[in-house]
Amino acid sequence: MIPADFNLKIAEIHDDRNRGASELARCCLAILAQAARELPAASGEEWRERLSGLSLELAETRPSMTPLRNLLRCWRNGLAADAAAPLALARQAAAARAEELSERSRRAVIDCARHVAALLGAERTIMTHSFSSTVLASCRLLKEKGLRMIVTESRPLEEGRRLAEQLSVWQVPTVYITEAQMALFVGQADAVLVGADSVLADGSALNKAGTALLALAARERGIPFYVACESFKWRDASDPPPGLEEMDPSELKVPAWPGVTVRNIYFDVTPARLIGAWIDETGVRRNAAQ
Amino acid sequence: MIPADFNLKIAEIHDDRNRGASELARCCLAILAQAARELPAASGEEWRERLSGLSLELAETRPSMTPLRNLLRCWRNGLAADAAAPLALARQAAAARAEELSERSRRAVIDCARHVAALLGAERTIMTHSFSSTVLASCRLLKEKGLRMIVTESRPLEEGRRLAEQLSVWQVPTVYITEAQMALFVGQADAVLVGADSVLADGSALNKAGTALLALAARERGIPFYVACESFKWRDASDPPPGLEEMDPSELKVPAWPGVTVRNIYFDVTPARLIGAWIDETGVRRNAAQ
Repeated sequence: MIPADFNLKIAEIHDDRNRGASELARCCLAILAQAARELPAASGEEWRERLSGLSLELAETRPSMTPLRNLLRCWRNGLAADAAAPLALARQAAAARAEELSERSRRAVIDCARHVAALLGAERTIMTHSFSSTVLASCRLLKEKGLRMIVTESRPLEEGRRLAEQLSVWQVPTVYITEAQMALFVGQADAVLVGADSVLADGSALNKAGTALLALAARERGIPFYVACESFKWRDASDPPPGLEEMDPSELKVPAWPGVTVRNIYFDVTPARLIGAWIDETGVRRNAAQ
Repeated sequence: MIPADFNLKIAEIHDDRNRGASELARCCLAILAQAARELPAASGEEWRERLSGLSLELAETRPSMTPLRNLLRCWRNGLAADAAAPLALARQAAAARAEELSERSRRAVIDCARHVAALLGAERTIMTHSFSSTVLASCRLLKEKGLRMIVTESRPLEEGRRLAEQLSVWQVPTVYITEAQMALFVGQADAVLVGADSVLADGSALNKAGTALLALAARERGIPFYVACESFKWRDASDPPPGLEEMDPSELKVPAWPGVTVRNIYFDVTPARLIGAWIDETGVRRNAAQ
């Protein structure tokens, strides 16, 4: 693999609209494992510098997605630790570390889903917004336990379709609605469960735009609102606030009206006080302030 | 015009997704004016019965839209008052009354917009949801007074496009967003202004689905939320609650996944406590409870 191929891969991560933050972070780790093995370098120092640069570039492709930042920083720190090793060994160690981190993240999602399933229990109607691999993993555990789902389409690219399709395959009775109908349907749910792309140090959750509206509607009806994600999505208090990524306005598929600015911000922030509990691979943390 | 033509017109009103409640009520009055003149009848009594039946049928086409109910009831009451007149004269009187009521409704929208414009003032950013002829009339009055608008697409049929297009023609700087982004943008508005299809006796407003979410987001950010509509949209306390019309799920354009029910409810109800003021042709009524 030559450096130009990595630029292509960086662009793919940047443009990906299908995968969530955890999945994309694991894609980045797979790219880094391959780069660790194959990136040409005259010396160990050059190799480390180039890998370090690549991992920084990858982390910056998706500023709203904290797992890219956290998992890749964790991996990068290991590069320095291996500085004394011969290059061939360092390549193996760095690739193995990327694969281990990826596996840790994958297991974290599964463990998180287990805690979610225990929290929600059987015979429940759960409402969600957009697509989250953690919510999907939770549905998988509850699909034979009387789960019913209410899912939103999630404009503009309608990731909700992907979830509805899988729920259909699993024969989970599902209601599919526009975001506009969220206030009409939230009262029919026993709980709202969403994933997150980032969780800020104060517990506020950055997730697909529309999540904050659903949290407001849930509070209004007294429906508990839960955020489930692996702990790699948590942001340190010292981290700068994540950017809210804005995508191409053409995704809204409207004409170019003069004087009309089409906006397409992908994420919003749900304040911690609207969140009833956070669930990660270590368990359930209830919001003491509620 | 023969009775079959009227059935066609009833179906058109039923299926109309472009026009709001006031416009459709005026369409109904135009149909009734024509029917009053042309509907074949052997006697005055038969004529009144058939017209009365037609007006009831028209009013029931759109149960969420109170002006159809109120304006058509008002018109129907006049039929009985004219019972003593010869048929030819009664035909003229009934047609004229339909046209007068239509004109009253049209003037009410204009007067309402005048009160809105005075309330909002110059150099303001106003956010709205969906399409309302009263909001449009208000924008017309403010378009040369530094008005800026934030408008939503309003899924599934995106009536927001019609508003954005007109604002573009008027050169009103406009931001166009998905419903999902409402919480992200409401903080940039000086006020939220929506129309209504019905206002319940307690002041709750029935309007395009998503309005209740916008009202929640506005309250969260301390942005005033106003409902503007002609008084024919107000419902008596003795009226039964209006139905929330549900349209064809095919409007969401998703495949028929087995076990997935696509819902397409067009209206939601914004509780009175979230509304800062109601504006109609008589003026502004502030919410004393806020």
